[in-house]
Amino acid sequence: MPNPTAAMLVIGDEILSGRTRDANMHFLAGQLTDAGIDLKEVRVVSDDRDAIVAAVQSLSAAHDTVFTSGGIGPTHDDITADCIAAAFDTPIDIREDARALLAAHYAKTGSDLNAARLRMARIPDGATLIDNPVSVAPGFSIKNVHVMAGVPSVFQAMVASILPTLTGGAPLVSKTLRIERGEGDIAGPLGELANTYPDLSIGSYPYQKDGKFGANIVIRGTDVAMVDTALAALETRFPG
Amino acid sequence: MPNPTAAMLVIGDEILSGRTRDANMHFLAGQLTDAGIDLKEVRVVSDDRDAIVAAVQSLSAAHDTVFTSGGIGPTHDDITADCIAAAFDTPIDIREDARALLAAHYAKTGSDLNAARLRMARIPDGATLIDNPVSVAPGFSIKNVHVMAGVPSVFQAMVASILPTLTGGAPLVSKTLRIERGEGDIAGPLGELANTYPDLSIGSYPYQKDGKFGANIVIRGTDVAMVDTALAALETRFPG
Repeated sequence: MPNPTAAMLVIGDEILSGRTRDANMHFLAGQLTDAGIDLKEVRVVSDDRDAIVAAVQSLSAAHDTVFTSGGIGPTHDDITADCIAAAFDTPIDIREDARALLAAHYAKTGSDLNAARLRMARIPDGATLIDNPVSVAPGFSIKNVHVMAGVPSVFQAMVASILPTLTGGAPLVSKTLRIERGEGDIAGPLGELANTYPDLSIGSYPYQKDGKFGANIVIRGTDVAMVDTALAALETRFPG
Repeated sequence: MPNPTAAMLVIGDEILSGRTRDANMHFLAGQLTDAGIDLKEVRVVSDDRDAIVAAVQSLSAAHDTVFTSGGIGPTHDDITADCIAAAFDTPIDIREDARALLAAHYAKTGSDLNAARLRMARIPDGATLIDNPVSVAPGFSIKNVHVMAGVPSVFQAMVASILPTLTGGAPLVSKTLRIERGEGDIAGPLGELANTYPDLSIGSYPYQKDGKFGANIVIRGTDVAMVDTALAALETRFPG
């Protein structure tokens, strides 16, 4: 049975302008691979209502699970929650349990639960809250979409609370052989290996270091013995 | 007049599995911003023919320019050139000038121009080659799509040769004010500022450091004087 599939939607002008280098995609990719969920696609869009709504609808229809990051804070450019509600044609308003979480937190820290902060309690109807142990303002899950913060520490905490609730497939085993030859020398035998083992994913990731070319060959699959056999065949063909 | 728009397509299983952290998106984003071209969307897809073809067609139709990275090497998983040809319903074959470039290079380095390496001379009909000063195998441009290597040093060299050929808009000026207050305290005044200056893009990028919350407020626009005026207004509202 194929693994469940996932997509990620990164929301934020700051990534597309080059101001910030996204860290959440790489983090989530590793977590999903470990969990046996195949991340099939990532999209990065700006803080633009139409772009967010269209991407959510498209990704939600095409994949088992969708994760979003960014745009759920208190400022005017945080429009993700409203866009998710629009994407699913669902009403959105301040929700009492989310408001209570924020009220308790800001009472403790002596800050005012002002109109801006109250925006973070706007949750689409029918959503489930995602716990935020870092800065309290919750994320939420609706249909197959999990809506999370963009700040990496918060994003990671939210992923940690969602992942155990998802059903993964067989985790992929991955082994790497570093070959200090140009990819062009490796490509022929590698293609034959890929034909011999159609159930394995065999990837070649070239690098250049100190003027020399080489490639890391990554063999992935759910059957450890098969991965090991293919790796051994490659090692025999390209000894150390 | 609005700036020209661009999209990027990152092709590669290694990014989606979390094995490799993409570096090309962040690089290209910064280069395009400097050039006055608005990067509107990035997609990351796996080495899957249908996914690549669909993404190329969609992005090429929606944006002025598209940049792709990855999948143009000699190994069996390098399928980008064939997918681009399929996306534009164009024939593809080994092209003589590309073959000559490779032949000269491998003759010099004493390597064999074998069948695998010859795959890198497969170029869709009607494309223009993109120079590769790092490892010779060329990229190519067809319609509004520029097809480049995934290895960062090669990708960057190819971007450097393409960018001067593109027409940019007015470059964005960007100024940042770091405010050591929770975003919830900043959000109200910031929303008013955004309303006052609809021609500026005003973004709030929260951070958490040593247990304290703050935000970098980034004001962007093509009119330097307007950016400075808005920044001064914000500084007055949140001194020191």
